[in-house]
Parts: sequence; structure tokens; C-alpha cells
Amino acid sequence: MRIGEFSRRVGVPIPTIKYYLRQGLLSPGSLTSPNQATYGPHHEHRLRLVRALNGLGGVPLARVRAVLKEMTAPDATTLGVLRALREHETEPEPDQKPGPDYDRARTAVLESFARRGWRTSPDAPEVRKLIATVLASRSLGHAELATAALNAYAEASEHTARGEARYIAQGRDPRDRAERLVMAALLGDALQASVRRLALEEAVRTTRAPGGSV
Amino acid sequence: MRIGEFSRRVGVPIPTIKYYLRQGLLSPGSLTSPNQATYGPHHEHRLRLVRALNGLGGVPLARVRAVLKEMTAPDATTLGVLRALREHETEPEPDQKPGPDYDRARTAVLESFARRGWRTSPDAPEVRKLIATVLASRSLGHAELATAALNAYAEASEHTARGEARYIAQGRDPRDRAERLVMAALLGDALQASVRRLALEEAVRTTRAPGGSV
Repeated sequence: MRIGEFSRRVGVPIPTIKYYLRQGLLSPGSLTSPNQATYGPHHEHRLRLVRALNGLGGVPLARVRAVLKEMTAPDATTLGVLRALREHETEPEPDQKPGPDYDRARTAVLESFARRGWRTSPDAPEVRKLIATVLASRSLGHAELATAALNAYAEASEHTARGEARYIAQGRDPRDRAERLVMAALLGDALQASVRRLALEEAVRTTRAPGGSV
Repeated sequence: MRIGEFSRRVGVPIPTIKYYLRQGLLSPGSLTSPNQATYGPHHEHRLRLVRALNGLGGVPLARVRAVLKEMTAPDATTLGVLRALREHETEPEPDQKPGPDYDRARTAVLESFARRGWRTSPDAPEVRKLIATVLASRSLGHAELATAALNAYAEASEHTARGEARYIAQGRDPRDRAERLVMAALLGDALQASVRRLALEEAVRTTRAPGGSV
């Protein structure tokens, strides 16, 4: 199909498609004449992937390129793709600097995972983010909430992640499995954030405060 | 305490504190002399709350002000606070426009919640985001993943949200409950995103693909 039809099918404006082509995020179409190119299902799939990563996942375009490269590498590994996916995420600097409070929060986070048998690296960026979150919660007097929530989320995520890992493992080759992994990670981020906000709204509606409203 | 000690205790630079004061995010300290103010535990708590909302929750400062106002209103309601919290979130415009695919995705999302008995508004911004996510996943050939993940996350969130709602209901007054709600919502967002990434990594490690690596 020509670029006009390609644009309509996918719902992405032609200038955006041309920009992605210049940036190397899409491979060029097949030339049918010196200034006429056609695009096929491979281009369509790739464009939707770029849009999903950038639009839904909030992954910057420069990082989308790195993720796609990692996904399509002949020696693609799921852990490599996961690493490429998360490299764009910058964690907020915690206000509280290393000290006894920081160490206590770090221990709580790492122990929560160790108890579940997770082989989480203590230096993972996610661990630093979790420590900052626990510290902030404690400094506001909500230590109880932080600990309970950390365990509740770890348990809930263990369950959903197992389903996702099965879906990934069913991919027909490494490339398909890499794509499934990216979809599971992105989709999970997008779904989870919205679903839990709705779940909280619903739970608040049905849980009556002993003192009345709110 | 004076502003220098206040800054050290909370780990926030003095110019930032002064900026928050000018922006009305913190109430002025008590003047002990014409150009000397002191700050107490109330200021400290409020500053930590601003930092948690802005730093951990990624809520823009203009929106932090609206959330704090809603939280401290005499007639604060949890649903009002939830609404104020989410108003800063803009959903990505889906590439696919209304049509049969859109309607099918919308039905799938709404039915998944209706089956659980949630009284979710069909017009909630989260619902629009979920439809966009399901559509993107289907257009990439991962319809199965989208449906399974939506249900898995709804079930997992139902469980964690119940714990959060209990924590909120235990607050001693409407203001305390509003703060607990904000903490639960923010903390949940921050914890969940990191925890599920680690859970996915762990699940991938332990689930072997039939075809070998990845």
C-alpha cells in the first residue's frame, strides 16, 4: 500500500510516518518508482509497535529505537530487553540521604523479596525507587501502609507476572518472545495504573468509615 | 525551627522551600522578628506531602495545590480527592478512532468491571485509557494477552484496594482519611510499577521457554 493508505489504516499522520522513517524507527518502503514507495504488513506492525511503546508506554523515541534494536537482535534475551525498556526511567532523588532510616527501608524492601525467593539485584533501579517510596511514606507517618502495600503488591504481582511469563514462553521464536515480553511489560504498566485507580474508587465506595462519610 | 534547620531535616534546599512558600504550597512560618520565621511539625508534614505528591507521584505543582486544597476542605470526600488527584493525568489519544473495533474493546473493558460488580463510570478517564491499551494490544496481534491481563489486574487490584480502603477507613477524621487516601493512591502507583517489573523479571527467569532461551 502507498503511504496515504498506510497512514489511514494505522491512524498515524503522514508527516509522523516520514519522521519515523528519517529517524530509522521504520525501515523504508519498497520503491515502485523513484518517488513512490509501498508499505506492507511488516511496516504496519512495526509502526503500531513504535506507537504503543511511545504513546502508551511513554518510552521516548530515542529509547524506542534501542528497545526495538534489542528486540530484533539475533541473540535477543528477555532480560536484555527488560533492561533496555527500563533504562529510560529515571528515579526521583529521595530527599532522605543514606543513614539509619535509609538502611532500614532498604532492608525492608530486600527482605520482602527475599522471603518470596526472588533473586532481585539490590542495585536494581526499581529497588532504589521502592526505598524512596517507603522512606517518603514513613516520614509522613504512614509506615504501616508502606509495609503492608509492599507485601500486597509483591503478592499480587507474582500472580499476574506468572501469567505473563507463560504468555511470553509460548512465543514461537526468540523474536516473538521478545515482542511478547515488551507487550506484557507495557500493557501491564498501562492496565495496572488505571485498573487499580478504579479498584480503589470501588473499594472506597464500599468500605464505610466508622465515623461516617469519606 | 528556623528555615536552615527545616531544610536540613527534610532534605529540601532552602530556595525550593522559599519557592513553595511563594506558590502558597506551604503556609508562612511564624514571625519571630521582621525577617526571621520559624517552622513547626505542621510545616514539616506539609512539605513532605508536597514532595511525595510531586516527586514520587509526578503530580505537577499546580495540581499539588488543588489536591491539597481538596484534602483539607472541611467537606472533603474521598471521591473528590481521587478526582483532584487524577485530573492532571492526560490520556494518550488512541490512533484508532471510534468504530466497531473501538466498541468491541469498550464492551470488553466495561464487562470485565461489571462482572466484578464495580460501579465504574463508562466515561471515567481510566476507562478511555484502558480501551486505548486494549486496542493497541489487539492491533499488534496480542488480543489474548490484553483480555487475560485486564482480568488478572482487576482481580489483583481488588485485593490490594480492599486493604487500602481499610487503611483509609481507619483514619481518625475526614482530613486524616483524605491524607490516607492520597498516600494509598500515590504509594500504590509508585510501588506497583516497580514491584511488577521485578516480579516479571523473576517470573521470566523461572519460566523456561519450550524452545530454549529467552
